Amino acid sequence: MSVPATVVTPPLVDELDIVIPTIRNLDFLEQWRPFFQPYHLIIVQDGDPSKTIRVPEGFDYELYNRNDINRILGPKSSCISFKDSACRCFGFLVSKKKYIFTIDDDCFVAKDPSGQEINALAQHIHNLLTPATPFFFNTLYDPYREGADFVRGYPFSLREGVTTAISHGLWLNIPDYDAPTQLVKPRERNTRYVDAVMTIPKGTLFPMCGMNLGFHRELIGPAMYFGLMGDGQPIGRYDDMWAGWCAKVICDHLGLGVKTGLPYIWHSKASNPFVNLKKEYKGIYWQEDIIPFFQNVTLPKECTTPQKCYIELSKLVKEKLGPIDPYFEKLSDAMVTWIDAWNELNPSTNGATTLKVELSKPK
Amino acid sequence: MSVPATVVTPPLVDELDIVIPTIRNLDFLEQWRPFFQPYHLIIVQDGDPSKTIRVPEGFDYELYNRNDINRILGPKSSCISFKDSACRCFGFLVSKKKYIFTIDDDCFVAKDPSGQEINALAQHIHNLLTPATPFFFNTLYDPYREGADFVRGYPFSLREGVTTAISHGLWLNIPDYDAPTQLVKPRERNTRYVDAVMTIPKGTLFPMCGMNLGFHRELIGPAMYFGLMGDGQPIGRYDDMWAGWCAKVICDHLGLGVKTGLPYIWHSKASNPFVNLKKEYKGIYWQEDIIPFFQNVTLPKECTTPQKCYIELSKLVKEKLGPIDPYFEKLSDAMVTWIDAWNELNPSTNGATTLKVELSKPK
Repeated sequence: MSVPATVVTPPLVDELDIVIPTIRNLDFLEQWRPFFQPYHLIIVQDGDPSKTIRVPEGFDYELYNRNDINRILGPKSSCISFKDSACRCFGFLVSKKKYIFTIDDDCFVAKDPSGQEINALAQHIHNLLTPATPFFFNTLYDPYREGADFVRGYPFSLREGVTTAISHGLWLNIPDYDAPTQLVKPRERNTRYVDAVMTIPKGTLFPMCGMNLGFHRELIGPAMYFGLMGDGQPIGRYDDMWAGWCAKVICDHLGLGVKTGLPYIWHSKASNPFVNLKKEYKGIYWQEDIIPFFQNVTLPKECTTPQKCYIELSKLVKEKLGPIDPYFEKLSDAMVTWIDAWNELNPSTNGATTLKVELSKPK
Repeated sequence: MSVPATVVTPPLVDELDIVIPTIRNLDFLEQWRPFFQPYHLIIVQDGDPSKTIRVPEGFDYELYNRNDINRILGPKSSCISFKDSACRCFGFLVSKKKYIFTIDDDCFVAKDPSGQEINALAQHIHNLLTPATPFFFNTLYDPYREGADFVRGYPFSLREGVTTAISHGLWLNIPDYDAPTQLVKPRERNTRYVDAVMTIPKGTLFPMCGMNLGFHRELIGPAMYFGLMGDGQPIGRYDDMWAGWCAKVICDHLGLGVKTGLPYIWHSKASNPFVNLKKEYKGIYWQEDIIPFFQNVTLPKECTTPQKCYIELSKLVKEKLGPIDPYFEKLSDAMVTWIDAWNELNPSTNGATTLKVELSKPK
């Protein structure tokens, strides 16, 4: 009599979608196959819809190009960027899952210092399923990790932590630098494996990179809008930053946690710094005003859902950032459209009903 | 003709004192000899002054016992704890140097993952001499480190950083746990070497451990008061925590940086958890009120020196924490005495003159 093989079900396999903004590299999915194949993929093609993306055999996926986005969202499709990886947030919108992992197609499997291949997805899931500690800093980093705990002087009332909404992973090899830093340090590579996950404290902003990112879609998905970038827009490469600033402020308001650190992926290819400079230069000076704006945002108590928070934020963006450039007025409108689209495609999500009532009020 | 040997002067050798609260272990200084011998040591004996502390040959040191403290400070000696390592702050008071490194006598030289002995002092000096970044989180940790930089989305106006006032180092082997955690996890050891130094963001408190700590004495020394602990006091093991909460709030107010992470030392011996529980138990419930107090402290603009900040904080401690227990009224008075003693022994330090005028005013 043969003993049945033990079948290990991958964690959250029915509750997580992997969202990828285009796939230009055939090796990408082959390399990730052992880790990604059990999961459902949502591929959002960022460029010309007439081009075909080849997905290797054996993957369960849905693929959307610009024509699909226009068909599904109708006039609301204006909020989704074209010819820019910012289009990935369309995948967040159409997913029906509780969690999202999103990764760029130039990110490959990294190795830890022992030479072991890193299952980035499993680490993100671990980060998301364990609490975060935004109210007080733990000097031994993640207190929920095996072999660690809260140190002396950490208030006991805060040791339960809060639900983690975002898990921000890092990159070995090519670091995520802006164009000026790329130009100044063309040969710099990140070789340092920092074996830590930590919570970004409440009230502290961080530069969220979309290359290697997990999040709790139900809790923070509506804030994960990647803005208006690329074709027809005055700015690029600020899509993930924008989402990060909005999402962090909303997580802080709603009492949710944001973690950064492990897992690492191997970032293979630096984008062209000259092209990047053109995309970024407005952002580089705008961010000097955007950061103080987000540092000082306070959301009213009545904002109890990510949708309500996001709508409130859109109003503040128009009021406070609108004077910098008309782009922010357009962005503010797009933020409202995004929430509209979110509620339309996710009618049952937390707070959506209440929100619709609010939205239908005259402004 | 012989070529003169290259003499490498250790960094800050004339500007840094090493403060040690008692030495019970003869191996301690022997093990640190290669790193500490060029520096001046200040040993503050925490217990019975009739006992003799043996210091091995070759070290340049001054040693103070309780009789010395009483003689030097007179009635003001009441602010220095007796029979507790909190007495170490007397060493901060009598030092004439710009920087302090303080370490416990059960902390030995640790090894990094490559097997190399870690020069903890050199790393603290590096941390103190490079800027800190308290206003925005850098996901690649210390941006001034070789091989790292500020990542995309980090505002350029914040890349100069601020002066670092505190460098908080960590511990391999025995982690710095409170008595309840020691009791629950008697066998837990910290084996994880996290290769990072990071700035604790503005507005975030942390549990500062005095075991392995560097700081800029001129900039934050007056806030490094280790409180009333040990003999005759209702609480122990909160000396460094108290200093850390006060110092962090004052660093935030004065625009100074606080770093944590590297260097590691090897913490050899866990203190007795039953004894610790007796020392800590009041602190464990008091800290539930102390933390919100420090989280909400705001210091007036007029407080432009650490002394002024500390006097202001002492008033707030009396007003807000006094109602919890008479201990805090006594502590508040001791904080004022400490600043008095600081100004007496450090007449030329920044702001002292201004402060004396203020102190002589009727309260």
